[in-house]
Amino acid sequence: MIEAALRLLEEGASVGALSIEGIARAAGVAKATVYRRWPGKDALMLDVLRSLEEPGPRPAGVSVRDDLVTILEFMRRRGLAKRNSALMRSILAQMHAHRELWRAYDENVIEVRRELLRSVLRRGVANGEIRADTDPELLADLFTGPMLSRAILHEWRELPEGLAERIVDTVLEGVSARG
Amino acid sequence: MIEAALRLLEEGASVGALSIEGIARAAGVAKATVYRRWPGKDALMLDVLRSLEEPGPRPAGVSVRDDLVTILEFMRRRGLAKRNSALMRSILAQMHAHRELWRAYDENVIEVRRELLRSVLRRGVANGEIRADTDPELLADLFTGPMLSRAILHEWRELPEGLAERIVDTVLEGVSARG
Repeated sequence: MIEAALRLLEEGASVGALSIEGIARAAGVAKATVYRRWPGKDALMLDVLRSLEEPGPRPAGVSVRDDLVTILEFMRRRGLAKRNSALMRSILAQMHAHRELWRAYDENVIEVRRELLRSVLRRGVANGEIRADTDPELLADLFTGPMLSRAILHEWRELPEGLAERIVDTVLEGVSARG
Repeated sequence: MIEAALRLLEEGASVGALSIEGIARAAGVAKATVYRRWPGKDALMLDVLRSLEEPGPRPAGVSVRDDLVTILEFMRRRGLAKRNSALMRSILAQMHAHRELWRAYDENVIEVRRELLRSVLRRGVANGEIRADTDPELLADLFTGPMLSRAILHEWRELPEGLAERIVDTVLEGVSARG
């Protein structure tokens, strides 16, 4: 069913035009068969999106700085992969117009990675590498925001090697000229 | 013509379905009249988008830190305005799927504000408030990325008062726990 949906999308069907009926037909199964596994189109689409994901980053768990680089480097590579795949780009671009689906994707797929980031940051606060007085959500945004802004919102901008390191180190050190 | 296009969009027409012909008809003018002012649909859409923008931020030009807050506060308010306008939200969400239009919008409308941000950052580097060893593009992303990520990519997250100040001050100081 997931493959059938991907095939339809690849053939140019829009996310909005996709229906359980159409997917069932393309997969050669009855509608009821699809509904046994997914309550509706959004749930099925979520699994379609999940099938396009690579396994998440695996921070080594030694230095918090290095783990942050690993996570941002994963985001950078994912941004590059998305740019190289017309299908992924088309699906993800359309998702912005399907707010509920985008939110479900964010809460189910992206949230796992965000929790990983939060756990690294908590470790950094606990072991004294990271300031303890910063709101954890803001902390996460400071590291991921610059990478997401380039990868997703400004797709034509470069995602050069070394970008993850530069973001992490600059956010850690700050940009104020001291002393 | 711009009003006619906005009316069509408000009535539920998609950006993709909009045509010069349809806009001319809705405005009660000949197609040639539209083409005299705009070479094509994308150019007209760009002016439609421009008509939805508020005047940009006006930094006071005294403290670089305060000017950065003014610029980020403008972004925060714009994010809130977008959330309150079904029309703006729908148009901007659809733009992600119209890559060329999104890029043109970014290069024409957003670029003016980005140049304002860059000029503030250059002033900060020149007067010693900002580190001189950071790539200017990265510097700009560090401030705007966290705000954009919340305002555009995670529309359901809060944009509380004081967020602009917190981002600016934390990026300036850094999040590393130093002595």
